[in-house]
Amino acid sequence: MTLAPWRSPLARALHRNRSLAASRYPQLATVKPDGRPANRTIVFRGFWSQTNHLQFITDQRSQKVEQLQHSAWGELCWYFGKTREQFRLAGKLSLITAAQPDPSLASARTALWQNLSDSARQQFAWPNPGGNWLEKPAFTPDLPDAQIPLPNFCLLLLEPTQVDHLELRGEPQNRWLYQQQTNGEWSLKSINP
Amino acid sequence: MTLAPWRSPLARALHRNRSLAASRYPQLATVKPDGRPANRTIVFRGFWSQTNHLQFITDQRSQKVEQLQHSAWGELCWYFGKTREQFRLAGKLSLITAAQPDPSLASARTALWQNLSDSARQQFAWPNPGGNWLEKPAFTPDLPDAQIPLPNFCLLLLEPTQVDHLELRGEPQNRWLYQQQTNGEWSLKSINP
Repeated sequence: MTLAPWRSPLARALHRNRSLAASRYPQLATVKPDGRPANRTIVFRGFWSQTNHLQFITDQRSQKVEQLQHSAWGELCWYFGKTREQFRLAGKLSLITAAQPDPSLASARTALWQNLSDSARQQFAWPNPGGNWLEKPAFTPDLPDAQIPLPNFCLLLLEPTQVDHLELRGEPQNRWLYQQQTNGEWSLKSINP
Repeated sequence: MTLAPWRSPLARALHRNRSLAASRYPQLATVKPDGRPANRTIVFRGFWSQTNHLQFITDQRSQKVEQLQHSAWGELCWYFGKTREQFRLAGKLSLITAAQPDPSLASARTALWQNLSDSARQQFAWPNPGGNWLEKPAFTPDLPDAQIPLPNFCLLLLEPTQVDHLELRGEPQNRWLYQQQTNGEWSLKSINP
């Protein structure tokens, strides 16, 4: 596969904003079963293999998993403070659980688990997220196996079909819209900011 | 009215992260007429008068205005990079247009217009946002009147009914959920991160 045309400006933004840790923490919007929006910060974990799918991780017990069963659509809003530009990536979300039959997706999930720190892995052994507060000892479980993911550990993939890139720095501002066509090709046009 | 209990931790976060310009640029999620989420960065313009309603500005021609007619619910995700904490504020959005009959809301809209810079005001005289790109001269209109808002200038209010505050720095992380009851009072509980 070929890199989508928005990959190059996104890679440039990631590079030029690399001094800001938050530049790897975009915000992901989904829709709740009641039709209202949800929005949370999420850590970008790179692209899946040779695809244009963005990788994130999530706990199968988290609310966003329930939301995805209702609606698989997401929009990621990514603001880069140093270069003052924004990417909005809209597309379908896929949850890769422990039951994933596809071997390449299953191994992508395992690879992300193995790359986590001990403390990040330990969070997947914490009590039910969003549940009523439990006392501190519940948050110091034994360290999970570093090789084999806990069953509730999931890979979350976002496959963008539209990317809206806004540069606030231009005179006037610059804004581009990338849209994937039904044949998989990407179109690109300049739009008004 | 009294300040909602989440106002104090939010004010503290704003103060402690004031060196980061992006700490005043949270992300607002809404739902499109087709049921998919939308998400964009937006500038926080303070609270409206003595209320707990957050102020933003928007162009009546923007897509979010169409989305609000379909669903008035929004969720604001606010990540503070220096203190590593997140607020998620869910609630109803209200659009205050030039046709607003309530005098106090109408004057809040006018006050925000008067506080903008010339260049920010000029953007409301730009061509239709999201429309096909027009040449540069279209983006250098005459400066609008500094006192009387252009008709497409809107105040956008978010009235939170639930606020989820997560501190990543704790050991373990700390997370609180504020919920407004039907009598208007706020409840607060600690929940699992």
